[in-house]
Amino acid sequence: MQIIITGGAGFLGQKLAKALLKNPIDFDELLLVDVIMPGVPLQDDRIVCKQVDLSEPGVPETLIRPDTGLIFHLAAILSSHAEKDFDLGWKINLDITKQLLEACRKRKPGIRFVFASSLAVYGGALPEMVNDMTALTPRSSYGIQKAMGELLVNDYTRKKFVDGRVLRLPTISVRPGKPNLAASSFVSSIIREPLHGEQTICPVDPGLGLWLSSPDTTISNFIHAAKVSEEQLGNWRSINLPGLGVTVRQMLDALEKVAGKSTLDLIQFKPDPAINNIVGTWPHKIDNEPALKLGFRIDQHFEDIITQFIDSES
Amino acid sequence: MQIIITGGAGFLGQKLAKALLKNPIDFDELLLVDVIMPGVPLQDDRIVCKQVDLSEPGVPETLIRPDTGLIFHLAAILSSHAEKDFDLGWKINLDITKQLLEACRKRKPGIRFVFASSLAVYGGALPEMVNDMTALTPRSSYGIQKAMGELLVNDYTRKKFVDGRVLRLPTISVRPGKPNLAASSFVSSIIREPLHGEQTICPVDPGLGLWLSSPDTTISNFIHAAKVSEEQLGNWRSINLPGLGVTVRQMLDALEKVAGKSTLDLIQFKPDPAINNIVGTWPHKIDNEPALKLGFRIDQHFEDIITQFIDSES
Repeated sequence: MQIIITGGAGFLGQKLAKALLKNPIDFDELLLVDVIMPGVPLQDDRIVCKQVDLSEPGVPETLIRPDTGLIFHLAAILSSHAEKDFDLGWKINLDITKQLLEACRKRKPGIRFVFASSLAVYGGALPEMVNDMTALTPRSSYGIQKAMGELLVNDYTRKKFVDGRVLRLPTISVRPGKPNLAASSFVSSIIREPLHGEQTICPVDPGLGLWLSSPDTTISNFIHAAKVSEEQLGNWRSINLPGLGVTVRQMLDALEKVAGKSTLDLIQFKPDPAINNIVGTWPHKIDNEPALKLGFRIDQHFEDIITQFIDSES
Repeated sequence: MQIIITGGAGFLGQKLAKALLKNPIDFDELLLVDVIMPGVPLQDDRIVCKQVDLSEPGVPETLIRPDTGLIFHLAAILSSHAEKDFDLGWKINLDITKQLLEACRKRKPGIRFVFASSLAVYGGALPEMVNDMTALTPRSSYGIQKAMGELLVNDYTRKKFVDGRVLRLPTISVRPGKPNLAASSFVSSIIREPLHGEQTICPVDPGLGLWLSSPDTTISNFIHAAKVSEEQLGNWRSINLPGLGVTVRQMLDALEKVAGKSTLDLIQFKPDPAINNIVGTWPHKIDNEPALKLGFRIDQHFEDIITQFIDSES
């Protein structure tokens, strides 16, 4: 079997590839594709990396082989970027998803198709506790595009063109590396930069609630999503991955506990309306029960998430 | 001001045009467009009819003039048709909607854009009473495409590319003419054909609940949607138009009352799984309050709806 990861050069794509190479899922080829050449995550004969532009007509079809069994579709334009470059957001977040689903339908119906969606599909006037039956009224183009992608994957699944699994990701923290073009980039920066002894800006109020998942838990949930049976999933395939609810203040308290009070001095509070307009509309309490029943994992404490990040860098 | 109606050859398009010509909305041109040449609904110098294929690249842009102020986007592939012809459904129900919104954005941002959606955006395991915050989990490609169109119109509105108003139409009964390719076509046929002394088939159980709006009420609500202020509508522009909840049995009881017992003998019950798979997933109780507060109209009794149909034919 061949497995494909789109967005294979990204943090999640690379980390997922590493996990798959160590995991008991049996496969012959793991194809990483991205608009920039993906790095080789681990030396392994099964890894193939390709630089391709999935938005070019016909390209998605060239990737799918008779033995393609699983696609992780992670390629995306992130929230702040999609808000600034409206056309690019539509092209990558929606059009490519459609083209990839069409390629599956034409070349090999029934491929297991794991789609990375986001809690950003929620927005506006939300109930205290969001659940699977809460309407999607996103207040960002990224959220709209992901919500539309979810509907696409669900319809292609109902028609048996793919076997879709839609994962609504909590905000991921702590991401390694540099800030990215997600409106939620600060959710990693306010921990990562102080741990590196660097100054950083927190663009939101310390009282803002967030809904988080650690990188390890997220990757483990991607692999679980590929394994869980169709019978367990039922007809509607959009899943709120379990998250941990914390305020920015609680994150910083945990940082102080783990790394000392001096780390907090590196954080400057400077409200950014563009970021608040997006992140401020996201939910910070989602019903975890349906996903936990399906066997998805959850983080227990934000301190553990910080420790996970420190360990990953050592 | 120019007003455009897409799907202008259809029953709703023609009826809306007639109503606009008699209505106090002030305009210079009423352009009806459709893939077949729209008929002239009333002799009036302001009417222009054009046969155009909106799915041809560039065509939507040619329609919009500097004085275009209002578009009613009614063009659609109906539910059973979109289920059978998957590609055509996407092309007309989604792609054209996007192209039309893009044309507004490029040619004249801010045009009032009234989009005909449908209660078919709901489906699956619904609560007893559906409301504005109920998730859209449609079980038909038509419902998926309309749900995606709604998201599009909302995002183009947020970006101020159009001033969108999304109307989720109840099932319309009684439509005149012939059965169409909507899965709900029988909802008109079981009244219309017996009134004409013709036999008809009811493909669902008499206990099935439906959510209805009469043609007159629907058209009146389209015009109201074009008039209601942005302030009243708020940020999220999807509106459940008020409906009347009835079972098929109640509809037939009303038919008997209005037209006599012999009309019921013309109806043969013959379940059709393809129709039940679509119509059986639609809601039959939706919270009317938000739309009534905005000033939209509602039908009171199904008997009045039958009388409205009889009067319209006389």
